[in-house]
Amino acid sequence: MDKISSVSKVELTNSDFVKPFRILYEQDGTKKIWDCIKIHDSVTILIHNVSRDVFVLVKQFRPAVYINQAASHGETGSEVNTEKVPGHLGLVYELCAGIVDKNCGWNEIAQMEVLEECGYQVPLSCLEEITLARGGTGVTGTKQAFYYARVTDDMKVSAGGGNVDEGEMIEVVEISVAESLTFAMDQSIEKPVGLIFAFLWYHQYKAPKSIS
Amino acid sequence: MDKISSVSKVELTNSDFVKPFRILYEQDGTKKIWDCIKIHDSVTILIHNVSRDVFVLVKQFRPAVYINQAASHGETGSEVNTEKVPGHLGLVYELCAGIVDKNCGWNEIAQMEVLEECGYQVPLSCLEEITLARGGTGVTGTKQAFYYARVTDDMKVSAGGGNVDEGEMIEVVEISVAESLTFAMDQSIEKPVGLIFAFLWYHQYKAPKSIS
Repeated sequence: MDKISSVSKVELTNSDFVKPFRILYEQDGTKKIWDCIKIHDSVTILIHNVSRDVFVLVKQFRPAVYINQAASHGETGSEVNTEKVPGHLGLVYELCAGIVDKNCGWNEIAQMEVLEECGYQVPLSCLEEITLARGGTGVTGTKQAFYYARVTDDMKVSAGGGNVDEGEMIEVVEISVAESLTFAMDQSIEKPVGLIFAFLWYHQYKAPKSIS
Repeated sequence: MDKISSVSKVELTNSDFVKPFRILYEQDGTKKIWDCIKIHDSVTILIHNVSRDVFVLVKQFRPAVYINQAASHGETGSEVNTEKVPGHLGLVYELCAGIVDKNCGWNEIAQMEVLEECGYQVPLSCLEEITLARGGTGVTGTKQAFYYARVTDDMKVSAGGGNVDEGEMIEVVEISVAESLTFAMDQSIEKPVGLIFAFLWYHQYKAPKSIS
């Protein structure tokens, strides 16, 4: 998965996924401009396999993270030296997630992503909404819905791994709940803040409490 | 601050802040493309005023959030009807934050942002690094550093409010630590996930523990 080669950056003139635009507006009578991009809202799911008390995550190569890693290794040109910046530097641990690009309930999209990426057929009754938040308030402003999915080994019906037709290469990874806070706060592991939030949320609101 | 008028969207041809590009690469021998934007890394600071046991937040109008709100009210054209979509729908509560656009320590940038946005002159010794995470792993891949700033009323030297020369209009808001979890999990309050994470982190690792 992390055998990355022939990396280059080119101009982006037209994209189905990243649509930049400028907003003109007046705030309290002052004219302003702000540059944004339009991307999709998303659903993000903390999958808890209670049969073995593990959280189920996805691990994948993220080109945007890799390019930032390349820049911090001094590789800022249009070609990236992949010997100097090996592909594993672009691997990121994330919660199962997907964009809202279908006309159905967000919980149904969450359900589909859990199946597609991680191979669990989870009933909607085992999907609990955690909260809503805004992703990237500066540039994207999209809505991000967080769910908690309680699954068992019985619900595992396929390997997961993402949509092969769309070229997705996703590794399904398990982190024990007991070690999840250590994992969450380990800076050396690449992950988005949404994953850290979800692990902390579980320990605040769901974990059995021991009297210390 | 939320008197918003004359809102329109125009094409973005050249921006100092949002720079789209395309990455070409091979993964395990398969040719792939991915569309990204280049934005700055950022620092985000959970400010805890221990004199009055409050968290200090910023509240501001976020055009990108407003445009998403407009779309969910059916206003998807190039002009937005601001009577139908009033400006307050674009107001977002956030942690104090700033982009890394200066050649100095990230903790010094955090220190500057705390002063500029919230008016506290915090010594570096009162700034603790919480963790690093990736913002927007799909499209931006930037690094986001979280800090915890322990401040007192004595450190308050100005009103804050952001950089007026840059047109920033920022309201400084205080949320009591006692009410902070309720605030964090209230879906009706617009905020990014980083704020929710930071509040939960405080309660997990910093708050005095009571035996329940």
